[in-house]
Amino acid sequence: MPFTKMCTSKLANPLMKYYLNLNGKSPLSKLSNSLNSSSFKFISCSPHIVCRELNTVSGVAIRPQTITKDDKRDFMAVFPDIVRDLTQLNPGISDLSTLISKLMQYNVSGGKKVRGLTVVYSYRMLAPDHALTPENIRLAQILGWCVEMLQGFFVVIDDLADQSVTRRGRPCWYRLPGVGLRASSDALLIQSGCFQLLQQHCKDKEFYVDLVELFLDALRRTTYGQTLDYVSSFPNINHLTMDRYNFITKYKTAYYTYHLPVATAMYMAGIYNAELHRQAKSVLLEMGHYFQVQDDYLDVFGDEEMIGKKGTDIQEGKCTWLAIIAFQRASPPQREVLESCYGTKEPEKIKKVKDIFIELSLPAVYHAYEEETYNLITRQIQQLSQGLPHELFLTLLHKLYGRKQ
Amino acid sequence: MPFTKMCTSKLANPLMKYYLNLNGKSPLSKLSNSLNSSSFKFISCSPHIVCRELNTVSGVAIRPQTITKDDKRDFMAVFPDIVRDLTQLNPGISDLSTLISKLMQYNVSGGKKVRGLTVVYSYRMLAPDHALTPENIRLAQILGWCVEMLQGFFVVIDDLADQSVTRRGRPCWYRLPGVGLRASSDALLIQSGCFQLLQQHCKDKEFYVDLVELFLDALRRTTYGQTLDYVSSFPNINHLTMDRYNFITKYKTAYYTYHLPVATAMYMAGIYNAELHRQAKSVLLEMGHYFQVQDDYLDVFGDEEMIGKKGTDIQEGKCTWLAIIAFQRASPPQREVLESCYGTKEPEKIKKVKDIFIELSLPAVYHAYEEETYNLITRQIQQLSQGLPHELFLTLLHKLYGRKQ
Repeated sequence: MPFTKMCTSKLANPLMKYYLNLNGKSPLSKLSNSLNSSSFKFISCSPHIVCRELNTVSGVAIRPQTITKDDKRDFMAVFPDIVRDLTQLNPGISDLSTLISKLMQYNVSGGKKVRGLTVVYSYRMLAPDHALTPENIRLAQILGWCVEMLQGFFVVIDDLADQSVTRRGRPCWYRLPGVGLRASSDALLIQSGCFQLLQQHCKDKEFYVDLVELFLDALRRTTYGQTLDYVSSFPNINHLTMDRYNFITKYKTAYYTYHLPVATAMYMAGIYNAELHRQAKSVLLEMGHYFQVQDDYLDVFGDEEMIGKKGTDIQEGKCTWLAIIAFQRASPPQREVLESCYGTKEPEKIKKVKDIFIELSLPAVYHAYEEETYNLITRQIQQLSQGLPHELFLTLLHKLYGRKQ
Repeated sequence: MPFTKMCTSKLANPLMKYYLNLNGKSPLSKLSNSLNSSSFKFISCSPHIVCRELNTVSGVAIRPQTITKDDKRDFMAVFPDIVRDLTQLNPGISDLSTLISKLMQYNVSGGKKVRGLTVVYSYRMLAPDHALTPENIRLAQILGWCVEMLQGFFVVIDDLADQSVTRRGRPCWYRLPGVGLRASSDALLIQSGCFQLLQQHCKDKEFYVDLVELFLDALRRTTYGQTLDYVSSFPNINHLTMDRYNFITKYKTAYYTYHLPVATAMYMAGIYNAELHRQAKSVLLEMGHYFQVQDDYLDVFGDEEMIGKKGTDIQEGKCTWLAIIAFQRASPPQREVLESCYGTKEPEKIKKVKDIFIELSLPAVYHAYEEETYNLITRQIQQLSQGLPHELFLTLLHKLYGRKQ
């Protein structure tokens, strides 16, 4: 069945989604491959709006099956407007505008932008056909940038608190000349800019209050997670438990990385039903947990150049998935080495920890975890209500599986 | 005229306020002195609510003419409930509850609490008689604590960024063992707790959205001010201008110190009229400016024990009122000394700067500024609309005049 026809059928008959092969690891890969940018035509709506109009077959919008390069380019095209909003609304001392602009460029515009793009993609998948206008897509992009700003805000604070060295292949913001400890205050310019944009662009929308509360909620929960992450580091071995890890992960990562972008799109698409939000949240927090376990794995075993930062979890003695499994599985002599070397800065001790991780086959344990988690979340998605398109959640899961950065 | 009678008359006839002597420096001092705690009786409304009921004469509420010791005690009595709200709503890992509680005790419960008490006092002055219930007074106290939390949040961030040594007579939070750079993240627990309380206690109120926006607005503007304060320090002499100073002061101090508490009370009292808010804001920002000039003066010439912190403006080369006036008035040789000594850490150079401040009679210039500003703001208050009780603003101004801490 040709892709466009399939999508049209799916929309005409929601049960069609069950015809998708959900047993394989990458059920959407074929669909994704069949989508290319030629499915879209470009329209220019205003000097500042360049959006792709969705193709339609018999007046029914075709939903994209994944996030494409075109989506990324369109998303980036909105960034200068966001910065202009932030600098125009501030009260006119040029130093401030220059700093806000620099902060945004350095800490928000880089990165993979997965969270921001997820807002746009989710909105395209969730909104009713008549709502998929260029104006609404643009608003989803702006809200996507708001999510990216929350991420950029936490990155600046976290790098300072952790004394990290590099981020996205460059020195962390606080390490730039003339910044230093002022970074904590600079970060607040990004944070408050995010709420300024929500107010500026959504004040008259029905979902405004839900959205502001959602962002404030993500802010609070992420802060809980960050805090517990800091205070749970080695050498207090009692902190290295899976219960505590699950808590930290859910709060530090899952809320703002998965729940926030999709819930934002749900509100924007007019989905207020509490049960649908509960179901979506449950699956999204599972994905967030999976994402963080991957992050922990990549911190030690990932390609530094691909990730754009040096792993520091071992020397910081972080409560990570690898550390917990290692302490659980270590023989008494291995445990002794871990206890004396985990959470220290000496390169030879860090190497010893990494060697024990390998002796304990942690990469294999991790890959088994990946398989199992992928299958578990797939089953959860299959049980979601019809108001939540399974393709959306499967695409997000698929993007996670086996990621290298 | 006895105090109680006067207040009753005032409420019955708003024009009575003009009978107050507004020519003297302390028009309210006699009224304040005539108020003592015996004007109130205590009632216990619930295990957690201990509020004073306003005396009434012929069923008309008597408004307090200033903030009393009783107000402070009642305000403090609510603090444990606030902390319980914050720790109960967090998701149950005891480390987190312990930290939140400690953060609140150390950074929020101390201090003069003028901003928080101003919310309660303003509400008592602004609310219609029937609204002055124990429940509403308690809500005003909770909102007062929210304002104090915003202040505590900025104090933690600011002390870290400035590398201050002491605050309120104790080491700054970031200097406590085990805190350090994590302070920037700890501060966010206070900030997000503030919005959590707004949601928990006001979600069903008509003024909820206005209130959340007001707090977000104060957060953003204060951040603008803090940022410009950091980047405007000496040695860039071009930054030491009165225009820039006025801007920094308005944003760094005036919004959250004066506008936020009174505007909070206005919304809570059901005052939404944009013109009344504009008028109030205009006067309150003037008071905030005056407050910051005092702060600058006290940083150099105040009693360190009374203020509870060591002055650091000279060594940090801050853009202060004293520095700007000094550079304006200095002779060429004095200016040379200022240029080589302002913004340096050596005690003998700091002393040289202070000596020049004295040679230039800055204390006298400051006292003249105080007189002039007091009179100017008094005239502004006299021009406020009737919906804004002049006594409220005069009391706030009176509390400022000649303050030593």
